[in-house]
Amino acid sequence: MALPLDTIRIVLVEPAGPLNVGSIARVMKNMGLTQLVLVNPQCDPLAPEARQMAVHALDVLMAAQVVDTLPEALVGCDRAIATTARERDLPNPLNTPRQLMPWLLASSIEAALIFGREDRGLSNQELSYAQHWLKIPVNSDYSSLNLAQAVAVCCYELHQAVLGPEPIAAIAPEQTPALAPLEQLEGYYQDLENLLLEIDYLQPHTAAARMAKFRHLYHRAALSGGEVALLRGVLRQMRWALHHPSAHRNTDTEQ
Amino acid sequence: MALPLDTIRIVLVEPAGPLNVGSIARVMKNMGLTQLVLVNPQCDPLAPEARQMAVHALDVLMAAQVVDTLPEALVGCDRAIATTARERDLPNPLNTPRQLMPWLLASSIEAALIFGREDRGLSNQELSYAQHWLKIPVNSDYSSLNLAQAVAVCCYELHQAVLGPEPIAAIAPEQTPALAPLEQLEGYYQDLENLLLEIDYLQPHTAAARMAKFRHLYHRAALSGGEVALLRGVLRQMRWALHHPSAHRNTDTEQ
Repeated sequence: MALPLDTIRIVLVEPAGPLNVGSIARVMKNMGLTQLVLVNPQCDPLAPEARQMAVHALDVLMAAQVVDTLPEALVGCDRAIATTARERDLPNPLNTPRQLMPWLLASSIEAALIFGREDRGLSNQELSYAQHWLKIPVNSDYSSLNLAQAVAVCCYELHQAVLGPEPIAAIAPEQTPALAPLEQLEGYYQDLENLLLEIDYLQPHTAAARMAKFRHLYHRAALSGGEVALLRGVLRQMRWALHHPSAHRNTDTEQ
Repeated sequence: MALPLDTIRIVLVEPAGPLNVGSIARVMKNMGLTQLVLVNPQCDPLAPEARQMAVHALDVLMAAQVVDTLPEALVGCDRAIATTARERDLPNPLNTPRQLMPWLLASSIEAALIFGREDRGLSNQELSYAQHWLKIPVNSDYSSLNLAQAVAVCCYELHQAVLGPEPIAAIAPEQTPALAPLEQLEGYYQDLENLLLEIDYLQPHTAAARMAKFRHLYHRAALSGGEVALLRGVLRQMRWALHHPSAHRNTDTEQ
Protein backbone atom coordinates (compact mmCIF):
# COMPACT_ATOMS: atom_id res chain seq x y z
CA MET A 1 0.00 0.00 0.00
CA ALA A 2 1.97 2.99 -1.26
CA LEU A 3 1.84 6.32 0.48
CA PRO A 4 1.60 9.52 -1.50
CA LEU A 5 5.05 10.62 -2.61
CA ASP A 6 4.91 13.76 -0.53
CA THR A 7 5.48 11.68 2.61
CA ILE A 8 8.92 10.67 1.35
CA ARG A 9 11.59 13.13 2.39
CA ILE A 10 14.79 13.70 0.48
CA VAL A 11 17.63 14.22 2.96
CA LEU A 12 20.85 15.85 1.77
CA VAL A 13 23.81 15.60 4.15
CA GLU A 14 26.07 18.67 3.98
CA PRO A 15 25.32 19.66 0.38
CA ALA A 16 27.87 22.23 -0.83
CA GLY A 17 26.56 23.24 -4.26
CA PRO A 18 23.63 25.65 -4.55
CA LEU A 19 23.13 24.62 -8.20
CA ASN A 20 22.63 21.05 -6.99
CA VAL A 21 20.21 22.02 -4.23
CA GLY A 22 18.12 24.06 -6.67
CA SER A 23 18.13 21.32 -9.31
CA ILE A 24 17.08 18.81 -6.69
CA ALA A 25 14.11 20.93 -5.62
CA ARG A 26 13.03 21.08 -9.26
CA VAL A 27 13.29 17.38 -10.00
CA MET A 28 11.58 16.54 -6.70
CA LYS A 29 8.57 18.59 -7.70
CA ASN A 30 8.67 17.12 -11.22
CA MET A 31 8.36 13.69 -9.63
CA GLY A 32 5.73 14.61 -7.01
CA LEU A 33 7.98 14.95 -3.95
CA THR A 34 7.85 18.01 -1.72
CA GLN A 35 9.85 17.38 1.49
CA LEU A 36 13.48 18.45 1.30
CA VAL A 37 15.64 18.23 4.44
CA LEU A 38 19.17 19.66 4.56
CA VAL A 39 21.58 18.42 7.22
CA ASN A 40 24.18 21.07 8.07
CA PRO A 41 24.25 22.54 4.54
CA GLN A 42 27.61 23.92 3.42
CA CYS A 43 25.98 26.45 1.11
CA ASP A 44 23.08 28.88 1.20
CA PRO A 45 20.14 26.84 -0.11
CA LEU A 46 18.40 30.09 -1.08
CA ALA A 47 21.39 31.51 -2.97
CA PRO A 48 20.56 33.00 -6.39
CA GLU A 49 22.01 29.95 -8.23
CA ALA A 50 19.78 27.63 -6.23
CA ARG A 51 16.68 29.71 -6.92
CA GLN A 52 17.56 29.90 -10.58
CA MET A 53 17.88 26.13 -10.91
CA ALA A 54 14.67 25.49 -8.93
CA VAL A 55 12.61 27.52 -11.46
CA HIS A 56 8.98 26.66 -10.58
CA ALA A 57 9.95 24.57 -7.56
CA LEU A 58 10.88 27.57 -5.46
CA ASP A 59 8.15 26.49 -3.03
CA VAL A 60 9.99 23.21 -2.36
CA LEU A 61 13.26 25.09 -1.87
CA MET A 62 11.70 27.70 0.43
CA ALA A 63 10.05 25.01 2.55
CA ALA A 64 13.27 22.99 2.94
CA GLN A 65 13.94 22.06 6.54
CA VAL A 66 17.46 22.68 7.85
CA VAL A 67 18.73 20.52 10.73
CA ASP A 68 22.08 19.96 12.43
CA THR A 69 22.31 16.18 12.46
CA LEU A 70 21.15 13.21 10.44
CA PRO A 71 19.09 11.69 13.28
CA GLU A 72 17.12 14.95 13.50
CA ALA A 73 16.38 14.66 9.80
CA LEU A 74 14.90 11.21 10.37
CA VAL A 75 12.50 12.04 13.22
CA GLY A 76 9.03 10.83 12.28
CA CYS A 77 10.26 8.22 9.79
CA ASP A 78 10.14 4.45 10.15
CA ARG A 79 12.14 3.62 7.05
CA ALA A 80 15.28 5.08 5.58
CA ILE A 81 17.47 4.25 2.62
CA ALA A 82 21.00 5.61 2.32
CA THR A 83 22.70 6.03 -1.03
CA THR A 84 26.31 5.23 -1.83
CA ALA A 85 28.39 5.34 -4.97
CA ARG A 86 31.08 3.01 -3.69
CA GLU A 87 31.23 -0.70 -3.19
CA ARG A 88 32.61 -0.68 0.32
CA ASP A 89 33.31 -3.37 2.79
CA LEU A 90 29.68 -3.30 3.87
CA PRO A 91 27.74 -5.80 5.90
CA ASN A 92 24.50 -5.15 4.00
CA PRO A 93 24.13 -5.85 0.29
CA LEU A 94 23.74 -2.87 -2.04
CA ASN A 95 20.43 -2.88 -3.82
CA THR A 96 19.26 -0.78 -6.75
CA PRO A 97 16.68 2.03 -6.73
CA ARG A 98 14.25 -0.14 -8.64
CA GLN A 99 14.53 -2.91 -6.10
CA LEU A 100 14.27 -0.71 -3.04
CA MET A 101 11.69 1.98 -3.76
CA PRO A 102 8.64 -0.23 -3.20
CA TRP A 103 10.02 -1.01 0.27
CA LEU A 104 10.39 2.71 1.04
CA LEU A 105 6.85 3.40 -0.14
CA ALA A 106 5.51 0.68 2.15
CA SER A 107 6.23 2.90 5.16
CA SER A 108 3.28 3.26 7.49
CA ILE A 109 4.24 6.80 8.53
CA GLU A 110 6.99 8.67 6.69
CA ALA A 111 10.25 7.59 5.10
CA ALA A 112 13.57 9.10 4.06
CA LEU A 113 16.02 8.77 1.21
CA ILE A 114 19.47 9.99 2.27
CA PHE A 115 22.17 11.40 -0.02
CA GLY A 116 25.73 12.28 0.97
CA ARG A 117 28.16 15.06 0.18
CA GLU A 118 29.10 15.85 -3.42
CA ASP A 119 32.75 14.92 -2.87
CA ARG A 120 32.70 12.00 -0.47
CA GLY A 121 29.17 10.76 0.07
CA LEU A 122 28.06 9.42 3.44
CA SER A 123 30.34 8.12 6.18
CA ASN A 124 29.95 4.51 7.27
CA GLN A 125 28.36 5.76 10.45
CA GLU A 126 25.84 7.83 8.50
CA LEU A 127 25.03 4.82 6.34
CA SER A 128 24.26 2.88 9.50
CA TYR A 129 21.27 5.13 10.26
CA ALA A 130 19.39 3.55 7.37
CA GLN A 131 18.01 0.03 7.11
CA HIS A 132 18.88 -0.36 3.44
CA TRP A 133 21.55 0.96 1.12
CA LEU A 134 21.25 1.67 -2.52
CA LYS A 135 23.65 2.14 -5.37
CA ILE A 136 22.53 3.35 -8.77
CA PRO A 137 23.83 0.95 -11.42
CA VAL A 138 26.46 2.78 -13.45
CA ASN A 139 29.30 2.13 -15.84
CA SER A 140 32.45 1.18 -13.97
CA ASP A 141 34.58 3.49 -16.15
CA TYR A 142 33.12 6.53 -14.43
CA SER A 143 30.84 5.71 -11.56
CA SER A 144 30.59 9.05 -9.79
CA LEU A 145 27.21 10.62 -10.52
CA ASN A 146 26.51 14.29 -9.98
CA LEU A 147 24.45 14.64 -6.78
CA ALA A 148 21.46 16.23 -8.54
CA GLN A 149 21.53 13.51 -11.20
CA ALA A 150 21.56 10.78 -8.55
CA VAL A 151 18.58 12.39 -6.83
CA ALA A 152 16.83 12.68 -10.20
CA VAL A 153 17.20 8.97 -10.92
CA CYS A 154 15.95 8.04 -7.43
CA CYS A 155 12.97 10.42 -7.53
CA TYR A 156 12.12 9.08 -10.97
CA GLU A 157 12.22 5.51 -9.63
CA LEU A 158 10.01 6.51 -6.70
CA HIS A 159 7.51 8.02 -9.08
CA GLN A 160 7.68 4.92 -11.26
CA ALA A 161 7.16 2.68 -8.23
CA VAL A 162 3.96 4.57 -7.39
CA LEU A 163 2.73 4.29 -10.97
CA GLY A 164 3.32 0.55 -10.80
CA PRO A 165 4.54 -1.74 -13.54
CA GLU A 166 4.09 -0.55 -17.09
CA PRO A 167 2.95 -2.71 -19.94
CA ILE A 168 6.27 -4.03 -21.23
CA ALA A 169 5.37 -4.54 -24.85
CA ALA A 170 4.04 -1.15 -25.91
CA ILE A 171 5.84 -1.95 -29.13
CA ALA A 172 5.33 -5.36 -30.59
CA PRO A 173 8.56 -7.29 -31.10
CA GLU A 174 9.51 -7.21 -34.73
CA GLN A 175 9.98 -10.13 -37.07
CA THR A 176 10.78 -7.78 -39.92
CA PRO A 177 14.13 -7.42 -41.69
CA ALA A 178 16.54 -4.72 -40.53
CA LEU A 179 15.13 -1.20 -40.72
CA ALA A 180 16.35 1.12 -43.43
CA PRO A 181 18.99 3.63 -42.28
CA LEU A 182 17.34 6.95 -41.44
CA GLU A 183 19.33 8.91 -44.01
CA GLN A 184 18.03 6.59 -46.73
CA LEU A 185 14.50 7.18 -45.47
CA GLU A 186 15.28 10.90 -45.35
CA GLY A 187 16.44 10.81 -48.96
CA TYR A 188 13.12 9.27 -49.87
CA TYR A 189 11.15 11.92 -47.99
CA GLN A 190 13.11 14.66 -49.78
CA ASP A 191 12.47 13.05 -53.16
CA LEU A 192 8.82 12.70 -52.33
CA GLU A 193 8.46 16.28 -51.12
CA ASN A 194 10.24 17.68 -54.17
CA LEU A 195 8.05 15.70 -56.48
CA LEU A 196 4.85 16.63 -54.65
CA LEU A 197 5.85 20.30 -54.79
CA GLU A 198 6.61 19.99 -58.46
CA ILE A 199 3.23 18.55 -59.22
CA ASP A 200 1.52 21.16 -56.98
CA TYR A 201 0.21 18.55 -54.62
CA LEU A 202 2.09 20.44 -51.91
CA GLN A 203 2.30 24.17 -51.41
CA PRO A 204 5.61 25.45 -49.96
CA HIS A 205 3.97 27.01 -46.88
CA THR A 206 2.10 23.86 -45.86
CA ALA A 207 4.59 21.26 -47.11
CA ALA A 208 6.19 20.51 -43.74
CA ALA A 209 2.92 19.76 -41.98
CA ARG A 210 1.67 17.58 -44.81
CA MET A 211 5.01 15.78 -45.08
CA ALA A 212 4.90 14.99 -41.36
CA LYS A 213 1.84 12.85 -42.06
CA PHE A 214 3.76 10.88 -44.65
CA ARG A 215 6.66 10.45 -42.29
CA HIS A 216 4.40 9.04 -39.61
CA LEU A 217 2.80 6.66 -42.01
CA TYR A 218 6.12 5.30 -43.23
CA HIS A 219 7.63 5.19 -39.77
CA ARG A 220 4.77 3.01 -38.64
CA ALA A 221 5.44 0.73 -41.58
CA ALA A 222 9.02 0.11 -40.36
CA LEU A 223 10.45 0.01 -43.86
CA SER A 224 13.45 -2.10 -44.81
CA GLY A 225 16.24 -0.76 -47.00
CA GLY A 226 14.91 -2.72 -49.96
CA GLU A 227 11.45 -1.23 -49.53
CA VAL A 228 12.79 2.31 -49.43
CA ALA A 229 14.78 1.62 -52.59
CA LEU A 230 11.56 0.38 -54.17
CA LEU A 231 9.66 3.54 -53.18
CA ARG A 232 12.45 5.77 -54.43
CA GLY A 233 12.43 3.87 -57.69
CA VAL A 234 8.78 4.77 -58.12
CA LEU A 235 9.53 8.45 -57.55
CA ARG A 236 12.46 8.38 -59.96
CA GLN A 237 10.27 6.86 -62.59
CA MET A 238 7.51 9.40 -61.94
CA ARG A 239 9.97 12.24 -62.30
CA TRP A 240 11.36 10.79 -65.53
CA ALA A 241 7.83 10.54 -66.87
CA LEU A 242 7.07 14.15 -65.92
CA HIS A 243 10.12 15.40 -67.78
CA HIS A 244 9.65 13.23 -70.80
CA PRO A 245 5.95 13.62 -71.54
CA SER A 246 6.21 12.30 -75.10
CA ALA A 247 8.25 9.24 -74.14
CA HIS A 248 5.74 8.62 -71.42
CA ARG A 249 2.78 8.84 -73.75
CA ASN A 250 4.53 6.59 -76.21
CA THR A 251 5.17 3.98 -73.55
CA ASP A 252 1.61 4.29 -72.48
CA THR A 253 0.33 3.72 -75.97
CA GLU A 254 2.49 0.72 -76.54
CA GLN A 255 1.14 -1.12 -73.51
CA MET B 1 20.11 -8.59 -29.15
CA ALA B 2 21.29 -5.38 -27.53
CA LEU B 3 24.15 -3.38 -28.94
CA PRO B 4 26.77 -1.87 -26.67
CA LEU B 5 25.58 1.43 -25.32
CA ASP B 6 28.29 3.36 -27.13
CA THR B 7 26.43 2.86 -30.41
CA ILE B 8 23.53 4.93 -29.09
CA ARG B 9 23.98 8.62 -29.79
CA ILE B 10 22.48 11.37 -27.69
CA VAL B 11 21.34 14.19 -29.99
CA LEU B 12 20.70 17.64 -28.51
CA VAL B 13 18.88 20.09 -30.77
CA GLU B 14 20.01 23.70 -30.21
CA PRO B 15 21.07 23.35 -26.57
CA ALA B 16 21.60 26.80 -25.03
CA GLY B 17 23.02 26.03 -21.58
CA PRO B 18 26.68 25.04 -21.21
CA LEU B 19 25.97 23.71 -17.70
CA ASN B 20 23.45 21.34 -19.24
CA VAL B 21 25.78 20.19 -22.00
CA GLY B 22 28.54 19.47 -19.49
CA SER B 23 26.19 17.63 -17.11
CA ILE B 24 24.90 15.58 -19.99
CA ALA B 25 28.43 14.51 -20.99
CA ARG B 26 29.01 13.38 -17.41
CA VAL B 27 25.82 11.38 -16.99
CA MET B 28 26.31 9.80 -20.43
CA LYS B 29 29.70 8.47 -19.39
CA ASN B 30 28.26 7.40 -16.02
CA MET B 31 25.78 5.26 -17.93
CA GLY B 32 28.18 3.93 -20.55
CA LEU B 33 27.27 6.22 -23.47
CA THR B 34 29.91 8.09 -25.42
CA GLN B 35 28.40 9.62 -28.57
CA LEU B 36 27.12 13.17 -28.13
CA VAL B 37 25.81 15.06 -31.18
CA LEU B 38 24.90 18.75 -31.01
CA VAL B 39 22.61 20.21 -33.67
CA ASN B 40 23.26 23.93 -34.17
CA PRO B 41 24.23 24.54 -30.52
CA GLN B 42 23.31 27.96 -29.12
CA CYS B 43 26.21 27.92 -26.67
CA ASP B 44 29.87 26.99 -26.66
CA PRO B 45 29.91 23.31 -25.67
CA LEU B 46 33.50 23.72 -24.49
CA ALA B 47 32.82 26.80 -22.35
CA PRO B 48 34.33 26.69 -18.85
CA GLU B 49 30.94 25.92 -17.22
CA ALA B 50 30.47 22.95 -19.53
CA ARG B 51 33.94 21.59 -18.79
CA GLN B 52 33.40 22.08 -15.09
CA MET B 53 30.15 20.10 -15.09
CA ALA B 54 31.63 17.33 -17.25
CA VAL B 55 34.37 16.61 -14.65
CA HIS B 56 35.84 13.27 -15.76
CA ALA B 57 33.71 13.10 -18.91
CA LEU B 58 35.69 15.79 -20.68
CA ASP B 59 36.54 13.16 -23.32
CA VAL B 60 32.85 12.80 -24.21
CA LEU B 61 32.45 16.58 -24.38
CA MET B 62 35.57 17.06 -26.50
CA ALA B 63 34.47 14.32 -28.92
CA ALA B 64 30.97 15.79 -29.35
CA GLN B 65 30.00 16.11 -32.99
CA VAL B 66 28.50 19.41 -34.08
CA VAL B 67 26.16 19.45 -37.10
CA ASP B 68 23.81 21.97 -38.67
CA THR B 69 20.63 19.97 -39.04
CA LEU B 70 18.82 17.12 -37.35
CA PRO B 71 18.93 14.84 -40.42
CA GLU B 72 22.74 15.15 -40.42
CA ALA B 73 22.76 14.04 -36.79
CA LEU B 74 20.88 10.91 -37.75
CA VAL B 75 23.09 9.70 -40.60
CA GLY B 76 24.12 6.11 -39.94
CA CYS B 77 21.15 5.37 -37.66
CA ASP B 78 18.21 3.10 -38.38
CA ARG B 79 16.21 3.95 -35.28
CA ALA B 80 15.46 7.22 -33.55
CA ILE B 81 13.37 8.22 -30.58
CA ALA B 82 12.38 11.84 -30.01
CA THR B 83 11.56 13.16 -26.56
CA THR B 84 8.75 15.53 -25.67
CA ALA B 85 7.45 16.97 -22.43
CA ARG B 86 4.06 17.87 -23.81
CA GLU B 87 0.97 15.90 -24.64
CA ARG B 88 0.35 17.35 -28.08
CA ASP B 89 -2.08 16.61 -30.77
CA LEU B 90 0.15 13.82 -32.00
CA PRO B 91 -0.61 10.97 -34.38
CA ASN B 92 1.74 8.58 -32.53
CA PRO B 93 1.20 7.52 -28.92
CA LEU B 94 3.73 8.73 -26.34
CA ASN B 95 5.57 5.90 -24.69
CA THR B 96 7.81 5.90 -21.64
CA PRO B 97 11.59 5.45 -21.50
CA ARG B 98 11.18 2.05 -19.90
CA GLN B 99 8.90 0.89 -22.68
CA LEU B 100 10.98 2.26 -25.54
CA MET B 101 14.64 1.67 -24.68
CA PRO B 102 14.66 -2.03 -25.59
CA TRP B 103 13.40 -1.05 -29.04
CA LEU B 104 16.22 1.48 -29.47
CA LEU B 105 18.80 -1.09 -28.39
CA ALA B 106 17.50 -3.56 -30.96
CA SER B 107 19.00 -1.42 -33.73
CA SER B 108 21.12 -3.36 -36.16
CA ILE B 109 23.48 -0.43 -36.81
CA GLU B 110 23.30 2.68 -34.68
CA ALA B 111 20.44 4.56 -33.04
CA ALA B 112 19.65 8.02 -31.73
CA LEU B 113 17.80 9.55 -28.82
CA ILE B 114 16.81 13.15 -29.60
CA PHE B 115 16.25 15.95 -27.07
CA GLY B 116 14.92 19.41 -27.83
CA ARG B 117 15.69 22.94 -26.67
CA GLU B 118 15.60 23.82 -22.98
CA ASP B 119 12.73 26.27 -23.44
CA ARG B 120 10.52 24.75 -26.09
CA GLY B 121 11.63 21.23 -26.90
CA LEU B 122 11.36 19.87 -30.42
CA SER B 123 9.10 21.19 -33.18
CA ASN B 124 6.48 18.88 -34.62
CA GLN B 125 8.59 18.62 -37.74
CA GLU B 126 11.64 17.60 -35.73
CA LEU B 127 9.56 15.00 -33.90
CA SER B 128 8.61 13.54 -37.25
CA TYR B 129 12.22 12.51 -37.92
CA ALA B 130 11.90 9.81 -35.28
CA GLN B 131 9.86 6.62 -35.43
CA HIS B 132 8.85 6.77 -31.76
CA TRP B 133 8.21 9.48 -29.21
CA LEU B 134 8.94 9.35 -25.57
CA LYS B 135 7.65 11.26 -22.56
CA ILE B 136 9.13 10.76 -19.11
CA PRO B 137 6.29 10.19 -16.62
CA VAL B 138 6.15 13.20 -14.29
CA ASN B 139 3.85 14.89 -11.84
CA SER B 140 1.31 17.06 -13.64
CA ASP B 141 1.81 19.94 -11.17
CA TYR B 142 5.22 20.67 -12.66
CA SER B 143 6.01 18.62 -15.70
CA SER B 144 8.95 20.51 -17.17
CA LEU B 145 12.16 18.63 -16.46
CA ASN B 146 15.56 20.25 -16.71
CA LEU B 147 17.21 19.07 -19.95
CA ALA B 148 20.16 17.43 -18.19
CA GLN B 149 17.81 15.66 -15.78
CA ALA B 150 15.71 14.35 -18.67
CA VAL B 151 18.83 13.02 -20.37
CA ALA B 152 19.95 11.47 -17.07
CA VAL B 153 16.71 9.55 -16.69
CA CYS B 154 16.85 8.32 -20.28
CA CYS B 155 20.51 7.29 -20.12
CA TYR B 156 19.78 5.51 -16.86
CA GLU B 157 16.90 3.63 -18.50
CA LEU B 158 19.13 2.69 -21.44
CA HIS B 159 21.72 1.33 -19.04
CA GLN B 160 19.00 -0.54 -17.15
CA ALA B 161 17.65 -1.98 -20.39
CA VAL B 162 21.09 -3.38 -21.20
CA LEU B 163 21.41 -4.87 -17.73
CA GLY B 164 18.04 -6.56 -18.24
CA PRO B 165 15.34 -7.14 -15.67
CA GLU B 166 16.40 -7.14 -12.04
CA PRO B 167 15.17 -9.58 -9.46
CA ILE B 168 12.12 -7.76 -8.17
CA ALA B 169 12.06 -9.09 -4.66
CA ALA B 170 15.54 -8.35 -3.35
CA ILE B 171 13.67 -7.62 -0.17
CA ALA B 172 11.09 -10.16 0.86
CA PRO B 173 7.63 -8.66 1.32
CA GLU B 174 6.94 -8.22 4.98
CA GLN B 175 4.13 -9.70 7.00
CA THR B 176 5.50 -8.03 10.13
CA PRO B 177 3.79 -5.27 12.13
CA ALA B 178 4.65 -1.64 11.36
CA LEU B 179 8.32 -0.80 11.81
CA ALA B 180 9.38 1.27 14.80
CA PRO B 181 9.90 4.98 14.08
CA LEU B 182 13.58 5.64 13.49
CA GLU B 183 13.87 8.10 16.35
CA GLN B 184 12.64 5.42 18.74
CA LEU B 185 15.25 3.05 17.33
CA GLU B 186 17.81 5.85 17.64
CA GLY B 187 16.86 6.32 21.29
CA TYR B 188 17.51 2.64 21.81
CA TYR B 189 20.92 2.80 20.11
CA GLN B 190 21.88 5.76 22.29
CA ASP B 191 20.77 3.90 25.44
CA LEU B 192 22.69 0.85 24.34
CA GLU B 193 25.85 2.79 23.48
CA ASN B 194 25.79 4.65 26.81
CA LEU B 195 25.34 1.46 28.71
CA LEU B 196 28.07 -0.36 26.80
CA LEU B 197 30.44 2.55 27.38
CA GLU B 198 29.55 2.54 31.04
CA ILE B 199 30.34 -1.13 31.42
CA ASP B 200 33.57 -0.71 29.39
CA TYR B 201 32.33 -2.99 26.65
CA LEU B 202 32.88 -0.06 24.30
CA GLN B 203 35.83 2.33 24.25
CA PRO B 204 34.98 5.91 23.17
CA HIS B 205 37.34 5.86 20.17
CA THR B 206 35.94 2.65 18.68
CA ALA B 207 32.33 2.98 19.81
CA ALA B 208 30.95 4.25 16.48
CA ALA B 209 32.36 1.36 14.44
CA ARG B 210 31.19 -1.22 16.92
CA MET B 211 27.77 0.40 17.22
CA ALA B 212 27.38 0.27 13.46
CA LYS B 213 27.40 -3.52 13.72
CA PHE B 214 24.56 -3.39 16.21
CA ARG B 215 22.63 -1.04 14.03
CA HIS B 216 22.95 -3.39 11.07
CA LEU B 217 21.85 -6.34 13.09
CA TYR B 218 18.74 -4.57 14.38
CA HIS B 219 17.95 -3.03 11.04
CA ARG B 220 17.92 -6.48 9.49
CA ALA B 221 15.53 -7.58 12.22
CA ALA B 222 12.99 -4.91 11.15
CA LEU B 223 11.89 -4.20 14.71
CA SER B 224 8.39 -3.09 15.62
CA GLY B 225 7.74 -0.30 18.12
CA GLY B 226 6.76 -2.88 20.74
CA GLU B 227 10.01 -4.76 20.26
CA VAL B 228 12.10 -1.61 20.62
CA ALA B 229 10.22 -0.80 23.83
CA LEU B 230 11.03 -4.29 25.00
CA LEU B 231 14.74 -3.91 24.26
CA ARG B 232 14.86 -0.51 25.93
CA GLY B 233 13.17 -2.05 28.96
CA VAL B 234 16.03 -4.52 29.21
CA LEU B 235 18.57 -1.70 29.11
CA ARG B 236 16.68 0.29 31.70
CA GLN B 237 16.64 -2.69 33.98
CA MET B 238 20.36 -3.35 33.42
CA ARG B 239 21.16 0.25 34.30
CA TRP B 240 19.01 0.07 37.42
CA ALA B 241 20.80 -3.10 38.47
CA LEU B 242 24.21 -1.51 37.86
CA HIS B 243 23.35 1.40 40.10
CA HIS B 244 21.73 -0.69 42.82
CA PRO B 245 24.16 -3.56 43.28
CA SER B 246 22.75 -4.61 46.61
CA ALA B 247 19.14 -4.58 45.43
CA HIS B 248 20.24 -6.59 42.44
CA ARG B 249 21.97 -9.19 44.55
CA ASN B 250 18.90 -9.47 46.73
CA THR B 251 16.65 -10.06 43.76
CA ASP B 252 19.07 -12.60 42.44
CA THR B 253 19.07 -14.47 45.71
CA GLU B 254 15.29 -14.54 45.90
CA GLN B 255 14.87 -16.26 42.58
